[in-house]
Amino acid sequence: MATIDDILSAIDAGQTAALERLFAFLAIPSISAVPAHFPDCERAADWLAAELGELGFEAAKRPASGRPMVVGHVKAARREAPHVLFYGHYDVQPVDPIDLWRSPPFEPKLEAAPQGDQIVARGACDDKGQLSTFLEACRAFKPFGGPPCHVTALFEGEEETGSPSLSAFLADNAKELKADIALVCDTGMWDRSTPAITVALRGIASDEVILTGASRDLHSGLYGGMAVNPIHVLARILGDLHDDNGAVAIPGFYDGVEDLPQEIADQWNALDFDAAGFLRDVGLTAPAGERDRTPLELLWSRPTCEVNGILGGYTGEGTKTVLPAKASAKLTFRLVGKQNPERVVQAFRTFVTSRLPTDVKAEFIGHAGSPAISLPVKNQALKIARRALEAEWGKPAALIGSGGSIPVVGAFKRELGMDSLLVGFGLPDDRVHSPNEKYDRASFHRGARSWARILAALAA
Amino acid sequence: MATIDDILSAIDAGQTAALERLFAFLAIPSISAVPAHFPDCERAADWLAAELGELGFEAAKRPASGRPMVVGHVKAARREAPHVLFYGHYDVQPVDPIDLWRSPPFEPKLEAAPQGDQIVARGACDDKGQLSTFLEACRAFKPFGGPPCHVTALFEGEEETGSPSLSAFLADNAKELKADIALVCDTGMWDRSTPAITVALRGIASDEVILTGASRDLHSGLYGGMAVNPIHVLARILGDLHDDNGAVAIPGFYDGVEDLPQEIADQWNALDFDAAGFLRDVGLTAPAGERDRTPLELLWSRPTCEVNGILGGYTGEGTKTVLPAKASAKLTFRLVGKQNPERVVQAFRTFVTSRLPTDVKAEFIGHAGSPAISLPVKNQALKIARRALEAEWGKPAALIGSGGSIPVVGAFKRELGMDSLLVGFGLPDDRVHSPNEKYDRASFHRGARSWARILAALAA
Repeated sequence: MATIDDILSAIDAGQTAALERLFAFLAIPSISAVPAHFPDCERAADWLAAELGELGFEAAKRPASGRPMVVGHVKAARREAPHVLFYGHYDVQPVDPIDLWRSPPFEPKLEAAPQGDQIVARGACDDKGQLSTFLEACRAFKPFGGPPCHVTALFEGEEETGSPSLSAFLADNAKELKADIALVCDTGMWDRSTPAITVALRGIASDEVILTGASRDLHSGLYGGMAVNPIHVLARILGDLHDDNGAVAIPGFYDGVEDLPQEIADQWNALDFDAAGFLRDVGLTAPAGERDRTPLELLWSRPTCEVNGILGGYTGEGTKTVLPAKASAKLTFRLVGKQNPERVVQAFRTFVTSRLPTDVKAEFIGHAGSPAISLPVKNQALKIARRALEAEWGKPAALIGSGGSIPVVGAFKRELGMDSLLVGFGLPDDRVHSPNEKYDRASFHRGARSWARILAALAA
Repeated sequence: MATIDDILSAIDAGQTAALERLFAFLAIPSISAVPAHFPDCERAADWLAAELGELGFEAAKRPASGRPMVVGHVKAARREAPHVLFYGHYDVQPVDPIDLWRSPPFEPKLEAAPQGDQIVARGACDDKGQLSTFLEACRAFKPFGGPPCHVTALFEGEEETGSPSLSAFLADNAKELKADIALVCDTGMWDRSTPAITVALRGIASDEVILTGASRDLHSGLYGGMAVNPIHVLARILGDLHDDNGAVAIPGFYDGVEDLPQEIADQWNALDFDAAGFLRDVGLTAPAGERDRTPLELLWSRPTCEVNGILGGYTGEGTKTVLPAKASAKLTFRLVGKQNPERVVQAFRTFVTSRLPTDVKAEFIGHAGSPAISLPVKNQALKIARRALEAEWGKPAALIGSGGSIPVVGAFKRELGMDSLLVGFGLPDDRVHSPNEKYDRASFHRGARSWARILAALAA
């Protein structure tokens, strides 16, 4: 039987080919938010199904209500080996503002950097690079009889749009997909040398509001002073969303938010987070959210209300003296504790409609949400993975929170009664969701080694 | 010598050909706000120069710092005839939102309507249709020896972008362009049966503000709660621009605003303005501006601050969990009395910068402005034109205000020491600056007849 060193050596020896595979995957512009890219989502799913097939999985692209799923299964040699469900997503974020990219987002490049080579492309980290670390670990096991655990792989193509089809797919295929634990690779390291397991995730709710005043755009000279301007109304409402202390001012918004237990607060304080450096990296100097909260609380255990986009009137070149008929905004809410996504959206809508003046109507377009979630620190797989990561990185894995949402984790719990182990190799400077997204080559390489160690340890 | 009836008969007999000429002019998409349409602006200028040539003017396209001017001169037979300068603009507004047009904006159509045929196209009224009424009047005089006044025609191509080149052109060509009075055809009738002369025009100032937070767009989950969101900051600032009574809250904004003299207020009250109908036509039920002002005051003699456009973050299809680096807004201010455009813009900028939190920077892009202007009611040409309009329409011309700005009127006064007589045939339902802009065929026809009468009366 192969030793873990055989597997790790195989990963080390196969780096160039692994990178070529990842580049081929990254070249597919599988943007799930843009219908014109739906065919690319199909291509990305086909690519994954073929890849799994090559790795010995029985795999297929599977229809879902939106973008397709990819599901594959491979059995371990040892029948009583544990069964893991590995999850990732093949869809990526939109690329705008496209002019801020140094090279085309779907022409992956290896760029030299002081900390080592970086893979630059949309999806380099989130989540094509990350999920590929697991695929490369499986590839390394293949010549030695395949992975030591029974592995089910599940890849979706709608993570970046709130995973609208996922819950139903899990419910419809619960028996096939249920495993001892889910492995999810969509999170980050604590820093370049410290691995991490994410044990708390903020949830998300989102909504879009469209305000309409007059039945058509008006001349601002001929109507200005008499006709209501929906941009003014929207600005006033959005300007009221936060109070002077940075807290969200929507009545009922904080229902279900709990204060951080002291032991978790102590652990987070011990991480010695460089908040100034975190902000400095993106050109900022001061935390802008709720006062009297530590930076890690703001990022991991406090809810937020953010306007992600706003649009109204003339926004092209030059000027246009228009008094617009419509103004709209897209918002997301990051949720913690027991905050309920539907109730948060409802509270926002009530907040808006209660502030509408005469002649302004509001229309809302809701999107799927998910509550916050956490993994009990005493979970057995968590303990094993923590030791495996320490073996690879030479440092204990930090148990951290994450401000981002991974709705699948909630869905696994809800639909399959299954906990998730969140291990990922992203870094804070990966520019996830932004122009010039990257993934360290070291994250890709040692991520694969880490998964090999975790699979071996879980099977031991 | 021809009688006025000869001229009017010629106009009546030539309607079909006149419409063909206007359609050819309307087919040129001369949008001055969009650089891609600069060549179309050149074409529109060429078209006008050729048209003037055909009417007996010595005319040419003339270079200016932006879009070209067109200048033409024709002498009256009688040497001591008065000299008028006719002004119009060949540029038009952008056409977005393009999907709300029932037919392509640059494929002019004649549409039947209960009140009579309508010419539908971008610029049908503003200002290609309007300026063509004067050209058609000149055409009618041609077989009888040309217009009875010395006429200088001046057409510019930047009225919709604030006329940035006009003042310098007037100053550089003052001697050539100076006349006894300027005739400007860019305003409206009081209603379908009542002609009007506009004696008070609001001025305009405009500005664009761009707020920047982080150095790049951020993931709203990974940074939300810590990083400042410029959309929130912009919304708060714009939401503060007006107080609860609808008044503009920028300190110093009302400097130079005067209360309406009682005699003018009485005349306006006598017009019996149907404010409810005016609003109902555009889907509204209540005045939205300053309280305790009459509707005509709000439209003609009170200043405004309007956000014409707002943009920030992700505004495409679906959702994107971005915390944007930038947010921007375009604003215009309608000015009255002695309000100073530069000082108003400066007051706005101070208002913005005094409200910026840590880490948010503001950049401003200013555009040209012009103060409000009025024509003394005792002006001799005004009296003559009023009688001529009454002869055509069978009703005294109303002396009205206008909420819109016509910067050239200020420039004529400033650069050439010349008053302007503002006579136009637009109607409140012309959808100027909006999709499906139209001009009543009757406005076009009787507008030409009106100018023929005015020219004859001025020369008498």
